Amino acid sequence: MKILIVNGPNLNLLGTREPEIYGNTSMEECLEDLKIKYPTAEIDFFQSNIEGEIIDRLQKIDYENLIINPGAYSHYSFAIADCLKNIKLPKVEVHISNIYQREEFRQKSVTAASCDAVLSGFGLKGYSLAINYLLK
Amino acid sequence: MKILIVNGPNLNLLGTREPEIYGNTSMEECLEDLKIKYPTAEIDFFQSNIEGEIIDRLQKIDYENLIINPGAYSHYSFAIADCLKNIKLPKVEVHISNIYQREEFRQKSVTAASCDAVLSGFGLKGYSLAINYLLK
Amino acid sequence: MKILIVNGPNLNLLGTREPEIYGNTSMEECLEDLKIKYPTAEIDFFQSNIEGEIIDRLQKIDYENLIINPGAYSHYSFAIADCLKNIKLPKVEVHISNIYQREEFRQKSVTAASCDAVLSGFGLKGYSLAINYLLK
Amino acid sequence: MKILIVNGPNLNLLGTREPEIYGNTSMEECLEDLKIKYPTAEIDFFQSNIEGEIIDRLQKIDYENLIINPGAYSHYSFAIADCLKNIKLPKVEVHISNIYQREEFRQKSVTAASCDAVLSGFGLKGYSLAINYLLK
Amino acid sequence: MKILIVNGPNLNLLGTREPEIYGNTSMEECLEDLKIKYPTAEIDFFQSNIEGEIIDRLQKIDYENLIINPGAYSHYSFAIADCLKNIKLPKVEVHISNIYQREEFRQKSVTAASCDAVLSGFGLKGYSLAINYLLK
Amino acid sequence: MKILIVNGPNLNLLGTREPEIYGNTSMEECLEDLKIKYPTAEIDFFQSNIEGEIIDRLQKIDYENLIINPGAYSHYSFAIADCLKNIKLPKVEVHISNIYQREEFRQKSVTAASCDAVLSGFGLKGYSLAINYLLK
Amino acid sequence: MKILIVNGPNLNLLGTREPEIYGNTSMEECLEDLKIKYPTAEIDFFQSNIEGEIIDRLQKIDYENLIINPGAYSHYSFAIADCLKNIKLPKVEVHISNIYQREEFRQKSVTAASCDAVLSGFGLKGYSLAINYLLK
Amino acid sequence: MKILIVNGPNLNLLGTREPEIYGNTSMEECLEDLKIKYPTAEIDFFQSNIEGEIIDRLQKIDYENLIINPGAYSHYSFAIADCLKNIKLPKVEVHISNIYQREEFRQKSVTAASCDAVLSGFGLKGYSLAINYLLK
Amino acid sequence: MKILIVNGPNLNLLGTREPEIYGNTSMEECLEDLKIKYPTAEIDFFQSNIEGEIIDRLQKIDYENLIINPGAYSHYSFAIADCLKNIKLPKVEVHISNIYQREEFRQKSVTAASCDAVLSGFGLKGYSLAINYLLK
Amino acid sequence: MKILIVNGPNLNLLGTREPEIYGNTSMEECLEDLKIKYPTAEIDFFQSNIEGEIIDRLQKIDYENLIINPGAYSHYSFAIADCLKNIKLPKVEVHISNIYQREEFRQKSVTAASCDAVLSGFGLKGYSLAINYLLK
Amino acid sequence: MKILIVNGPNLNLLGTREPEIYGNTSMEECLEDLKIKYPTAEIDFFQSNIEGEIIDRLQKIDYENLIINPGAYSHYSFAIADCLKNIKLPKVEVHISNIYQREEFRQKSVTAASCDAVLSGFGLKGYSLAINYLLK
Amino acid sequence: MKILIVNGPNLNLLGTREPEIYGNTSMEECLEDLKIKYPTAEIDFFQSNIEGEIIDRLQKIDYENLIINPGAYSHYSFAIADCLKNIKLPKVEVHISNIYQREEFRQKSVTAASCDAVLSGFGLKGYSLAINYLLK
Repeated sequence: MKILIVNGPNLNLLGTREPEIYGNTSMEECLEDLKIKYPTAEIDFFQSNIEGEIIDRLQKIDYENLIINPGAYSHYSFAIADCLKNIKLPKVEVHISNIYQREEFRQKSVTAASCDAVLSGFGLKGYSLAINYLLK
Repeated sequence: MKILIVNGPNLNLLGTREPEIYGNTSMEECLEDLKIKYPTAEIDFFQSNIEGEIIDRLQKIDYENLIINPGAYSHYSFAIADCLKNIKLPKVEVHISNIYQREEFRQKSVTAASCDAVLSGFGLKGYSLAINYLLK
Repeated sequence: MKILIVNGPNLNLLGTREPEIYGNTSMEECLEDLKIKYPTAEIDFFQSNIEGEIIDRLQKIDYENLIINPGAYSHYSFAIADCLKNIKLPKVEVHISNIYQREEFRQKSVTAASCDAVLSGFGLKGYSLAINYLLK
Repeated sequence: MKILIVNGPNLNLLGTREPEIYGNTSMEECLEDLKIKYPTAEIDFFQSNIEGEIIDRLQKIDYENLIINPGAYSHYSFAIADCLKNIKLPKVEVHISNIYQREEFRQKSVTAASCDAVLSGFGLKGYSLAINYLLK
Repeated sequence: MKILIVNGPNLNLLGTREPEIYGNTSMEECLEDLKIKYPTAEIDFFQSNIEGEIIDRLQKIDYENLIINPGAYSHYSFAIADCLKNIKLPKVEVHISNIYQREEFRQKSVTAASCDAVLSGFGLKGYSLAINYLLK
Repeated sequence: MKILIVNGPNLNLLGTREPEIYGNTSMEECLEDLKIKYPTAEIDFFQSNIEGEIIDRLQKIDYENLIINPGAYSHYSFAIADCLKNIKLPKVEVHISNIYQREEFRQKSVTAASCDAVLSGFGLKGYSLAINYLLK
Repeated sequence: MKILIVNGPNLNLLGTREPEIYGNTSMEECLEDLKIKYPTAEIDFFQSNIEGEIIDRLQKIDYENLIINPGAYSHYSFAIADCLKNIKLPKVEVHISNIYQREEFRQKSVTAASCDAVLSGFGLKGYSLAINYLLK
Repeated sequence: MKILIVNGPNLNLLGTREPEIYGNTSMEECLEDLKIKYPTAEIDFFQSNIEGEIIDRLQKIDYENLIINPGAYSHYSFAIADCLKNIKLPKVEVHISNIYQREEFRQKSVTAASCDAVLSGFGLKGYSLAINYLLK
Repeated sequence: MKILIVNGPNLNLLGTREPEIYGNTSMEECLEDLKIKYPTAEIDFFQSNIEGEIIDRLQKIDYENLIINPGAYSHYSFAIADCLKNIKLPKVEVHISNIYQREEFRQKSVTAASCDAVLSGFGLKGYSLAINYLLK
Repeated sequence: MKILIVNGPNLNLLGTREPEIYGNTSMEECLEDLKIKYPTAEIDFFQSNIEGEIIDRLQKIDYENLIINPGAYSHYSFAIADCLKNIKLPKVEVHISNIYQREEFRQKSVTAASCDAVLSGFGLKGYSLAINYLLK
Repeated sequence: MKILIVNGPNLNLLGTREPEIYGNTSMEECLEDLKIKYPTAEIDFFQSNIEGEIIDRLQKIDYENLIINPGAYSHYSFAIADCLKNIKLPKVEVHISNIYQREEFRQKSVTAASCDAVLSGFGLKGYSLAINYLLK
Repeated sequence: MKILIVNGPNLNLLGTREPEIYGNTSMEECLEDLKIKYPTAEIDFFQSNIEGEIIDRLQKIDYENLIINPGAYSHYSFAIADCLKNIKLPKVEVHISNIYQREEFRQKSVTAASCDAVLSGFGLKGYSLAINYLLK
């Protein structure tokens, strides 16, 4: 069971960026935890700040499941949305913070309709829940 | 660890209502599965089609955690949103279908900002994920 | 041929409420007239001011046809709309006054798309026309 | 009792145009049925694709009742709406399909406020219901 | 000095149509008055309920000045607006009633920007003022 | 002089709910104060979280004056607004907090136009001011 | 206890302006009544039609309480709103008519959020209620 | 026959301000022309850049007719609109340029509904037309 | 291979109307060029300023392909859009100028969704490109 | 080199008004600093809370450069915008706070398009930067 | 005659991506066909999923003509629009599918106004038509 | 004192791109001028057309001050805005042209709220003013 996590812009700073919102754990630490928690799954992650590199990576996906946190691109990247629509894998969109408690612009996701399911506000635990779901 | 699941209008028909969207499992069966899966948790659920009865029930909550699927009330019940804001427990909002793939009106949730986290599109498994999160 | 008429909020005051808009006939008198006019049909009506009780009643419907006048709930009750969508019977939405001649908010019906047909502005005769249609 | 039915653009194709929406009966056949059903009424119809010709016809009306299906003109012809407002006869607006189940633009009628009553979604039977109402 | 007055839909009913708004004088009587008042001017008028016939007439204009009351077409006929833009004559748009005191839709004129000047609310005297202006 | 106070959803929690906004006094204590302050008035109150129960109560009103705090229902309950419009008594709408200093959605009241007067932001003293006004 | 009442544009005409809306009492008479009713309070009022003069007056306020009826300026004067925000006194905004029963533009107040409380629709008695509140 | 012309902000610069839009004639010259043209009328004008001074002047009006060019205040001064509504004289609103050919914000007039009639785009001749109308 | 070109309002003036936008070639000359360029195709055109005549012509179409330039009707004629939707032929919508470089209202086409393809901004060459496509 | 600084409403309170936003320096002190910093420039300032007085002052300007901080009038005074457009001098609009970090209404400036340049958020140093620019 | 085709995000998947919308032909095959069809033209193409790389490529263009299919970037990339505006070559925007038959967001193109002409819905043949036009 | 200037898309063409708007000076020349003018400051600049590369550069910033001209990305890049919010340095947003005098879309900046201050319309001198401010 192979699962790819794709993280969008500014998510490479997890653990140091606005920790009151995003927490103190880096994505690398998060991945370690996920691997321990789900030892049978082959989990990897990819991060880029560049919209088109995210698309490049998604187009070449050879995993069996996709978790994507498009970060701010969720709110305007129709290009990523188009790309996701073309991927015929189980797909979950994850937001670390509860987007409904934040700025107006964050409450619209143009990519969410291209995924199977969406979760928001569970902190880094959201990645774990998404894997839990995909492994069923 | 006590968890209350509150389900809103038309969710008493789970299993028979629009099964292509909501699946074939009833909430009773779902609860059985949850109890088996989380034997240490004390889980119960409440359902009402009446907005104010949901508020009545929420006001009297004596559980340690709340999962709420407000159904269609998510999209306009500021009364339930006010009630939820006043509840100082871990709270998760669950939607069975991916609301981003459905009608325009379903893409706004006025209650979500009053919960800690939201998930949508995981089917009945969404309740399980919410419990998983609350038990951490 | 069994037909249930479901009336929403404030329609229990038919005959005394704003008679210049809704006329002087009570729903009970109206029902008498309908029974005389359509002797072969088994007609009954249910009224509630409570959104969720209307849903409760609709979910348990064991008639062969439905006429619904959701009153003010037409304009915002997505919960009733969801419930109606799940009812696989001939369904007609009735408004006594011509909603297009009244306030802005009355010109949008969120429940009408869940019914087969809609009529508005025929006074209490609208119920008779709806039955006429259903009996075809 | 004389009743004029005025049909707007594309309604001359009734019976062949998008039959899954509008059915297989032509307006001529429909009129025959109406005449049989209401033998005491003198019923006639007028159809034009030209907005201004509809106005010309309406201005010269010498019937005692008016049924109008303005077709697509319902949604933007303030000119027809102005004309209707000036006609002091019983007036019913008819739509064959349920406009609430169709495109966004069809859910606004600028002419409906100039009629006494409106019905939508009853198929060609809508004309019959309108006559039924007018004959009372 | 030749002046053409072009009147749009329902203005052929001047004198009888909604007299509390439009007065009791017919356009023919109005024209008589104008001819008496401005004996040196050659004044004529054209009326049609048909948008395209108004365009036909405007395209063939061989007068030196244009007064147009597009009636309800003012509010949505981009076709007439396009036609007017192409006419290189002094042009005045006239509205009999004060459109700012009436329905919302009447407060936007899509044709007014294609005329040199606009007047509204002067009753039939508006035509006289327009001629007064054009004769300067 | 009989005055009924009708309180909407979550107002049964007055004194404990978000006290930084709504204060520390319960409605029962508030009523005691009011009775002391206005000894000649017969004051009572009714509270429900259920929209339709509020309507039920309002329809049966046999007091001479009405004070209503519809709570969150102010912002979307056209059903309560319809009901209020039908009540021919002096009516005052009360909001405890200043709704203009709060969320966007709270700044629109659909019920206020059905009352004679509205006050907002006076805390529980608002009920006293309303009675003061009604007793004149 | 010193209270200043500041009245905005056209309120100098109280008693003669649109008496069906604003009543027949002048502000001078109203002040006399208030002084009799609240003999311990030192009450004065200031009126200006000039937005900036109202600001000038407010900036120099040396009373202990403020009542303001900004009239039409309520609906667009961000300058007065800014000024009010800077005044650290108990402040009440008063509207004589029920602004919710009038034109659309009157239903938004840009100054109300800068006051502690707002009342609307109590006629001139509104000033008395505001003083009643401030004297507590 | 006494006529007062009230001009709003920046109209004191007529003749030098943006002459490609407003022409080269000053208001003083314009008034001279009007007095010559209408010798029987007593015409005067008042100009102020101050919204409230315009209201002051309007409130004290002792002429028999009013012509007002509120300039930019047309587009947002509800205070002037309120004042005009209270003046029971024949009233004409004049705009020198055709406001429909200019910026979006100029196409809405909040004062026009408080006047009897409006004209726009006739240059300074607009004042003459307004007088012509008032003298009828 | 038979192709009908249908041109909407004001397109009969091609060659003389706003030549800086629409060029100096008349439709007749354009047709000559098209016939020379596509000798195997049978090409004809129809023009009308009347919305309903365009519909009349379209309903009777007995060509194998349709090119339509609805002119200004593109932007509001739901009647033509309905008519086009019912035509089961290859259909191309042509605009001579680039509608995206012009007024706001021209950037919405209500008819384009009823055609197979749309082109805009190619001048009269657009007709040639459309034929080129249809002849494939 | 003569430079006039024009400050709008509430800016006379600089140094005491909301110091957490606007700082503790008065405009008089600021002017002293500017004169020291730019000894070759002749700098003066004018402040008024009255929209029309600002226009009066601007119309009489005999300086070679203009700096304007219209305060809250930036957001709705089309009258000041019109006046500025007519001034053919180098013009800079200054806002002390960063208007993009504040309320929604402050993020639109209707006067900024009438100036050459705009700066916002530099505190009182913004006036210095504007002079620095004008002196180039 | 040198022509560059620039394709935006996800267009590298032509032939496999959503073939029911975009067809089964790859861009490489399409280019072969174009070279055969237009042997005198030197045609090349560039594709990138990265918005800024598209801008990089466009800035360095040394072809004589440009065809661009910005894909999803058409709908929000003001950066590409700015870049295109600066290119002084014949430019055509191509969309493979008819954007008017798809989602709401696809019906606005922010780049189209920076091109000379736009075509949409012709499938891959659109590229051929664009070349046909450019070669004139 | 180290200052980094970050320039967004199309700003590498400064000096040749739309010189009537952006002037004839290249960024390299501009930087030379800035170094001469501020000899004690260490100034450098970075430019990229790629949104994500700008984020990459900003995340690694080791200067003490930031000047950013996000170009067109100002108007929609929530990703850059998120990145800027996380940078705890003095930050100034610069626009060369006055964005308020240009297209509608340029008048909203989604990045400006993440900077301390914003200036617009000062040409390349804007960079100098920003440094002047940062050096204080």
